[in-house]
Amino acid sequence: MTGSREVFAGKVINVRVDDIALSGGRTATREVVEYPGAVVVIALSGAGEVTLVRQWRHAIGQLLLEFPAGGLEPGEDPSVSAQRELREEAGLEAASWTRLGHFFSSPGFANEILHVFLAEDLTTVEADPDEDEDLQVVRYRLSDLYEHPEKLEDAKSLAALLLLRAARPGVDTGR
Amino acid sequence: MTGSREVFAGKVINVRVDDIALSGGRTATREVVEYPGAVVVIALSGAGEVTLVRQWRHAIGQLLLEFPAGGLEPGEDPSVSAQRELREEAGLEAASWTRLGHFFSSPGFANEILHVFLAEDLTTVEADPDEDEDLQVVRYRLSDLYEHPEKLEDAKSLAALLLLRAARPGVDTGR
Repeated sequence: MTGSREVFAGKVINVRVDDIALSGGRTATREVVEYPGAVVVIALSGAGEVTLVRQWRHAIGQLLLEFPAGGLEPGEDPSVSAQRELREEAGLEAASWTRLGHFFSSPGFANEILHVFLAEDLTTVEADPDEDEDLQVVRYRLSDLYEHPEKLEDAKSLAALLLLRAARPGVDTGR
Repeated sequence: MTGSREVFAGKVINVRVDDIALSGGRTATREVVEYPGAVVVIALSGAGEVTLVRQWRHAIGQLLLEFPAGGLEPGEDPSVSAQRELREEAGLEAASWTRLGHFFSSPGFANEILHVFLAEDLTTVEADPDEDEDLQVVRYRLSDLYEHPEKLEDAKSLAALLLLRAARPGVDTGR
């Protein structure tokens, strides 16, 4: 990298433009959206149901059905964020946690990394969403989502389902 | 929306900050990254292999293995973009195209929508990547990726695999 300048510092994202050297002596710029990373939680009940949240997403101008998710606080371990988001958004605590993996949401222009967790042995607690979040908590049969993934127009939720199935073969059919 | 201002106009992304009204009379701001939308292509051979590209992703500072993908040109139909990206990045043309669905990559802060295509009946042509792309084309058995999705740290590629499996039950095991 031969140069870098911040072009926007926001509440949620920062944006910078980097000058980079390519092979063959060429140069180019890269616009990078900085985001602190996030977690996604699949909360699976013993009856084969998962908890999702439906919320208005201003950036895309529509309601979206997603697994509970949220950004990491500075320096926070993802497993702590996962417990917090599940409690705040879905009103659930889990006695059993499994880390399913990670992925990048938009590697072409953003540095956001998402850590995926499976939460089981669930207990209901009081939900406490962020004050500017309007969330509707809904439950689906997990097998229904594998059969009809078009219900989820959200890359992180779809990708999380794929990681879950690889970790738990047969989970998609309720076996 | 009660107000909106552009804070960055780049070559690839634009960023704006919107003022929005929440329920209960509260207000908040939303930072939105504008991106023109993109396509993802799973090119599947008759032998059960898929074509991926490995490339350095500056935003995340590492090499990433992804299905061929790319942004829509202004006004371009996604199916046209898909054919172009497959030809340019992977050096392939396909006689059979199936639309598998769509999803949003980062609905919390970006408006990017990704359209997913399955390309079959493949013919090799000359690749012609964008001049500032350094791509390595690699082939994997599709069943290997379903078994080891951790090889793909890319949300769009993982989500695309989930859509493919719902559209083509059994494709993940080579049946």
